[in-house]
Amino acid sequence: MDRLTPALADAAEAMARALAGFLPRMDGPERRVVEAMAYATLNGGKRLRPFLVLNSAQLFDVPRARALRAAAAAEYVHCYSLVHDDLPAMDDDDLRRGKPTTHIQFDEATAILAGDGLLTFAFELLGDAPTHPDGAVRAELVVALARAIGAEGMVGGQMFDLRAEDMRLSLADITRLQAMKTGALFRFSCEAGAILGQAPADARTALRDYARDLGLAFQIADDLLDHEGTEAEVGKKVGKDAAAGKGTFVSLLGADEARRRARSLAEQAASHVDRFGPNADLLKDVARFVVERRA
Amino acid sequence: MDRLTPALADAAEAMARALAGFLPRMDGPERRVVEAMAYATLNGGKRLRPFLVLNSAQLFDVPRARALRAAAAAEYVHCYSLVHDDLPAMDDDDLRRGKPTTHIQFDEATAILAGDGLLTFAFELLGDAPTHPDGAVRAELVVALARAIGAEGMVGGQMFDLRAEDMRLSLADITRLQAMKTGALFRFSCEAGAILGQAPADARTALRDYARDLGLAFQIADDLLDHEGTEAEVGKKVGKDAAAGKGTFVSLLGADEARRRARSLAEQAASHVDRFGPNADLLKDVARFVVERRA
Repeated sequence: MDRLTPALADAAEAMARALAGFLPRMDGPERRVVEAMAYATLNGGKRLRPFLVLNSAQLFDVPRARALRAAAAAEYVHCYSLVHDDLPAMDDDDLRRGKPTTHIQFDEATAILAGDGLLTFAFELLGDAPTHPDGAVRAELVVALARAIGAEGMVGGQMFDLRAEDMRLSLADITRLQAMKTGALFRFSCEAGAILGQAPADARTALRDYARDLGLAFQIADDLLDHEGTEAEVGKKVGKDAAAGKGTFVSLLGADEARRRARSLAEQAASHVDRFGPNADLLKDVARFVVERRA
Repeated sequence: MDRLTPALADAAEAMARALAGFLPRMDGPERRVVEAMAYATLNGGKRLRPFLVLNSAQLFDVPRARALRAAAAAEYVHCYSLVHDDLPAMDDDDLRRGKPTTHIQFDEATAILAGDGLLTFAFELLGDAPTHPDGAVRAELVVALARAIGAEGMVGGQMFDLRAEDMRLSLADITRLQAMKTGALFRFSCEAGAILGQAPADARTALRDYARDLGLAFQIADDLLDHEGTEAEVGKKVGKDAAAGKGTFVSLLGADEARRRARSLAEQAASHVDRFGPNADLLKDVARFVVERRA
């Protein structure tokens, strides 16, 4: 992991600057919503999705300023989804990465609006001219993001998850749920670089396959953390899935088999990007990292 | 108003079909979110924003199938904003056009997700190829919508409005608040036709000016309805602004002067589209209609 740690830290730092820099400056009473958007975004997250955008873009020599915009869009969307998921009517979480969630720090109405504002802003960033000189590329990014996070993607996955309490889910159900809820945004993050680089179809397929395996490995690792981690380590409540009677990869497979599968998926993800040679080394490293992380 | 009534009814009917037709068909437990999206959308609304899109597009001979997509995007966004504004943490409304609001009919979590899904879907619709063969036009629509409804537009206006309780607002404050909260989406609706028609800058300016005056007239009329209408007529709670101690156009100007201003703004709106000749007759009619409506 030696080369990954500094690369992740560099990307996280660049992203924190970009995420703060893109947000509009505002006066008047309405600036509270941008303060909440900034609070929700500038939270010391790992910035995994931006890392995937930046590193997939590098495979196709995409100029960094363009890749940063798509990376920021993916992260704004991720942060919006956390803000809305944490609301009392949804998962009702007070704590996120060890800090008060947005509706605790501000209030519920502001948190709803901040999420709406972040989601909207992601599309503005992608659609606007500096993202790519070709409008068709910008429109393609917009559509790829919208499909990944709408009713057939992340939003549908969250709906599925809310209804999954007290349902008896099979492994196939959980896999489909997670592909929608978290996998689709990973896929967008990996494809965004290929879209920006106007990469050939087979390269896009390879990145999509990488993202699918990575996303599933990530989610199994998440279930393991929820099962085994402590609140102090993970920075949010743990053991909630079991308490809610939700089936997870761990409850269905057992912890040992779940861990074995996550590792095997990470290797499979890495193999999909072999074709890109050493340029894809960091993508391979990060697939292994998501399985072994402690938070 | 003779020619307006059937034109509004025709457009509303075409929109109801389009709004239902564009939404994705889904199976599985997640289909509940699309059911809520449909419920929030297919509500017998006046479809003013789509009407503006369709009629501004007609000025530039935009093919109807393209205009319908932009019109639907504007209406999905309007409906998402109602769903989120009606939530208990926001305006806490149980009734909308005489029917239970989405969080009453479903539940709060589903309403939050349905709003998120509608917002996301609007961008997918605009960005996707059938909206216009030129990707730059699609990207421009995306950016115009995002700017209209983000932190510097509708979302910021709603934040401003929530903070306006117990603030002493001047007429200038209320005008700015309403320009953000409701005016910006009217402006997008009027500009969308010009963007789709790749209209020259002066035509776009005329439509923007029309939209500004129309939006303000609309809001003053809304305040008058809140002040004078009955719940049965208006289809939602009335008198809420006064109860919340909020300044409105009516509280600052008095009902008679407010009505006079609204009518004068409607005439001013109409004058901005004189340049388009008889093709703009329905746009002129609708500006007068928003002032005289009873709901």
